[in-house]
Amino acid sequence: MNYQEVLQQIQHELQPLIGQGQVASYIPELAKVSPHHFGMAVVGIDGSVHTVGDAHVPFSIQSISKLFTLVMALQLEGDHVWDRVGREPSGTPFNSLVQLEAESGKPRNPFINPGALVCTDILCTRYAVPENAVVEFLRPLCGNRDIHYNRAVAASERRASDRNAAMAHLMKAFGNLRNSVDVVLDAYCRHCAIEMNCVELARAVTFLAHGGSHPEGQGDVLSISMAKRLNALMLTCGTYDAAGDFAFRVGLPAKSGVGGGIVAVMPGECGICVWSPALEPSGNSFAGSLALERFTTLTGRSIF
Amino acid sequence: MNYQEVLQQIQHELQPLIGQGQVASYIPELAKVSPHHFGMAVVGIDGSVHTVGDAHVPFSIQSISKLFTLVMALQLEGDHVWDRVGREPSGTPFNSLVQLEAESGKPRNPFINPGALVCTDILCTRYAVPENAVVEFLRPLCGNRDIHYNRAVAASERRASDRNAAMAHLMKAFGNLRNSVDVVLDAYCRHCAIEMNCVELARAVTFLAHGGSHPEGQGDVLSISMAKRLNALMLTCGTYDAAGDFAFRVGLPAKSGVGGGIVAVMPGECGICVWSPALEPSGNSFAGSLALERFTTLTGRSIF
Amino acid sequence: MNYQEVLQQIQHELQPLIGQGQVASYIPELAKVSPHHFGMAVVGIDGSVHTVGDAHVPFSIQSISKLFTLVMALQLEGDHVWDRVGREPSGTPFNSLVQLEAESGKPRNPFINPGALVCTDILCTRYAVPENAVVEFLRPLCGNRDIHYNRAVAASERRASDRNAAMAHLMKAFGNLRNSVDVVLDAYCRHCAIEMNCVELARAVTFLAHGGSHPEGQGDVLSISMAKRLNALMLTCGTYDAAGDFAFRVGLPAKSGVGGGIVAVMPGECGICVWSPALEPSGNSFAGSLALERFTTLTGRSIF
Amino acid sequence: MNYQEVLQQIQHELQPLIGQGQVASYIPELAKVSPHHFGMAVVGIDGSVHTVGDAHVPFSIQSISKLFTLVMALQLEGDHVWDRVGREPSGTPFNSLVQLEAESGKPRNPFINPGALVCTDILCTRYAVPENAVVEFLRPLCGNRDIHYNRAVAASERRASDRNAAMAHLMKAFGNLRNSVDVVLDAYCRHCAIEMNCVELARAVTFLAHGGSHPEGQGDVLSISMAKRLNALMLTCGTYDAAGDFAFRVGLPAKSGVGGGIVAVMPGECGICVWSPALEPSGNSFAGSLALERFTTLTGRSIF
Repeated sequence: MNYQEVLQQIQHELQPLIGQGQVASYIPELAKVSPHHFGMAVVGIDGSVHTVGDAHVPFSIQSISKLFTLVMALQLEGDHVWDRVGREPSGTPFNSLVQLEAESGKPRNPFINPGALVCTDILCTRYAVPENAVVEFLRPLCGNRDIHYNRAVAASERRASDRNAAMAHLMKAFGNLRNSVDVVLDAYCRHCAIEMNCVELARAVTFLAHGGSHPEGQGDVLSISMAKRLNALMLTCGTYDAAGDFAFRVGLPAKSGVGGGIVAVMPGECGICVWSPALEPSGNSFAGSLALERFTTLTGRSIF
Repeated sequence: MNYQEVLQQIQHELQPLIGQGQVASYIPELAKVSPHHFGMAVVGIDGSVHTVGDAHVPFSIQSISKLFTLVMALQLEGDHVWDRVGREPSGTPFNSLVQLEAESGKPRNPFINPGALVCTDILCTRYAVPENAVVEFLRPLCGNRDIHYNRAVAASERRASDRNAAMAHLMKAFGNLRNSVDVVLDAYCRHCAIEMNCVELARAVTFLAHGGSHPEGQGDVLSISMAKRLNALMLTCGTYDAAGDFAFRVGLPAKSGVGGGIVAVMPGECGICVWSPALEPSGNSFAGSLALERFTTLTGRSIF
Repeated sequence: MNYQEVLQQIQHELQPLIGQGQVASYIPELAKVSPHHFGMAVVGIDGSVHTVGDAHVPFSIQSISKLFTLVMALQLEGDHVWDRVGREPSGTPFNSLVQLEAESGKPRNPFINPGALVCTDILCTRYAVPENAVVEFLRPLCGNRDIHYNRAVAASERRASDRNAAMAHLMKAFGNLRNSVDVVLDAYCRHCAIEMNCVELARAVTFLAHGGSHPEGQGDVLSISMAKRLNALMLTCGTYDAAGDFAFRVGLPAKSGVGGGIVAVMPGECGICVWSPALEPSGNSFAGSLALERFTTLTGRSIF
Repeated sequence: MNYQEVLQQIQHELQPLIGQGQVASYIPELAKVSPHHFGMAVVGIDGSVHTVGDAHVPFSIQSISKLFTLVMALQLEGDHVWDRVGREPSGTPFNSLVQLEAESGKPRNPFINPGALVCTDILCTRYAVPENAVVEFLRPLCGNRDIHYNRAVAASERRASDRNAAMAHLMKAFGNLRNSVDVVLDAYCRHCAIEMNCVELARAVTFLAHGGSHPEGQGDVLSISMAKRLNALMLTCGTYDAAGDFAFRVGLPAKSGVGGGIVAVMPGECGICVWSPALEPSGNSFAGSLALERFTTLTGRSIF
């Protein structure tokens, strides 16, 4: 069965389930999105593109941006990033302060909010307009020079960011934030509000399926070793408190966002992105998780 | 570089570091083992065997038995096992009661002590002498009909099992233990005290590199799907509180024990076992972790 | 208004509320008690006795025994008791293991279960039959040579004691229990099952209103200083997780039990006991708490 | 022994210990205070004043202001205050976020930082310049029209307030803060920086020893019932995580501050204030705690 057939089979099977779950409501602007979207794209390291459904409709990437800010932080500071953020699953809901306090302001990993705030802080130190730096980093990776962030979504998220502010202030109290809390939160809310579609996101992660180098020859994004390690980190920490269950069911490195998108990597083969806005209680797309589970089952492929 | 050369290279590189760390001391009998042992074995799914150092010296498998009691519990009860034990990383030290209490007596995963106690409880319900059932399950898998458990180690561990008793009683208070605490602890301490060598353990996990079926044709141990899922579970939860870091550095599904052994799986290729008794603070073999990290680096192979 | 009038007024006011709440159900034998009992007694340090309702009906003292085992432990070991048990409110539900683990097996105070298990352990080291020692300690204090413990209740509680066993094993793992867990739990369940009535319990605590010495001239139970300190401990820790609220509403040192009894002390004046089996969610008698609140309001007396 | 003799005896006994402990260092301005100060004052409800040492030297009242902001909040909102803040001991260090998160943004009691931030929020809703309202509330109570807050201390504290900001944002995320975090923190840091001396503070709490009414006839501050309840709250929650031990040793309602001051109340008799800047690890004045312990021992008086 080729990828195109697999995608169509998945869409067919999931049709009755699309819309189950809850669209993220804590950011008012996101709550306006219809729960009935479903799109999926596979971009091979050979450049092949397969899509189904709403794969060309842009959506808010939200926490998927954590993957890209980490890559940028690693490019800037290498393994020094790990002095300020850990590499272990959090084992608690994705915005918990408890662990952050118990562990002296060092976030468990870069894929939970406080960890991404540290990566954003690194970008704030280096770039005058860090959200623009993220957008410019993504344009060549995703093959679209027109992506941008949605100002209304960023503003809506900024107004609902008291929990993130609490975490940022706590880290600052522990000396693990260099820039002001307001500066970091502004940049954070903006890069979370970047809008991309499934094809663009699937293409943007193909370098992780290709040993860290861009498959179309634009050079290395990360070293082979670092790319493999990033895949490992996505597997253990990429899907909030459900990472163990997700690895168990899907078996691919992945990163999800509350906008309903999930990117995944099949090493040596392709980047994948699925989007459906209604979420499971753990914050991952309900139909998106199922789609990836069916993808590895139908193709008989996973990293295990 | 072939596997034999890789193993010799690893032994050569690690020689100065062997013995660093602490031999487990909470079980008096284990504390007697010399920290200077080092052995490693690779058993291919084609039957090839490569070894270095003390690969034929038996040692106490300890928590590696958790992998085998889980496989047996899955054979007996299938996915019903997951009603009583979770699939998420614990995020806290390996014998913590906090999470067990907060989550109503359902252990986070089958590779922490309370999770293994639940699997043992399942065996206690089915078998009159569960520790013997584990030994008999392992004999054909490992290719040695003479393996057994060490009664002195089992008795020593049983006398030091107040923390495990606390966890067992807490689960019983929540209704998640069917047999008496004493019966479960007796069986648990005995199967932890099974002694095997690196070659035997590497061979015993080859079915996990071979889609769940024994490579020498003795039939299926688990279904393909379940074998892949077990590998995922080892990757996210197999090495105590350091699972994230271990996946990051090594990139292979693995399960460790405080006796200093670590088994790992290279899907489609081989089972691996390394043994060196001195431990890191997280409870994993210090030299063993490094050896596996070098193995994936030198071979250029990992699941990512 | 004299005490007799106050008691009658309280009974009159509370009549419509008696039976609200839940009788303790985790011990099957206790669940058989009717929720409609209500009794109250005041015994002055001058020997005067005032009663209302079921003040002469014996009931299971349960955690009120923690007060007496602490007094006995202090008589045996003086301030060394505080090396093994703290003096701070627990701030968490009364049988939580979390704090016990976080604080290395040292219970927060002697009025939560693990703290009382430590006091019982002290008695087990000194007495061959510690439950009988508690009964014999209480007989002259309460003025009745015929009190005893209820074997059916003790056995029922012993069968439901997995949580207490978990705490005892955890403390033993930390080296804070000298005797075997089974020995301590047997003694504990038996002294919790002692049966006394309101008059007997009110009389048994008059020494705490009288500077530590028995008002009828049978000598000192505790020093003046220690008696005052015990009153302070009852105020801050005597009523489970509701101690702050209880002090706020009632303003008297008190100790409650899940049998529905509460003893209280008015320094310089009297001992008080109220009994009504239906409990608030915090484990204190619902009508009993209200009765004591009305008592301090109607008499205009409290320690504040 | 009269109060004057008692105070002199205490000063004599404690002389060798004054200066032991650590002056609060997290607020740079406070760290400049000499640890060798010691002053104590007793102001009777009959107007008598007894002093020793530095009783007329002003110091930063810090958390003692929490007592006064609570009284003002109760005057404004009565028992509605308890909808937003609890009455239980916290059982954890005084600035912990864990409990606040676990209990959905409702602080355990008004004497820990988040509880005082809620009371300050109530004042911010009512008053344009809430810190001035606190100062004006205190002037008649303490008998000095010239008290004020120290702007340098307030500014120093404001710059070191990331932890308080974290707590304030977390409460705001839970809907338990009406005003902006910046507004509340500004007011909070300023009323903490009020400077008073021992005589003024002892006089300011005499109404709590006098049934809620000012002993010099300026009318009721609180009702009798509310005053008694406030004393109970001080006893169970007034001295951070050491409240149980403090009640045990001292036996008086009290409120401490990291400036080294402690106010205490002897119901029916007097207000007390002691000041010595070096602190115990729990955040209470080391010499101050001992002084109050000696006071109740030497006078033979406590509430128990």
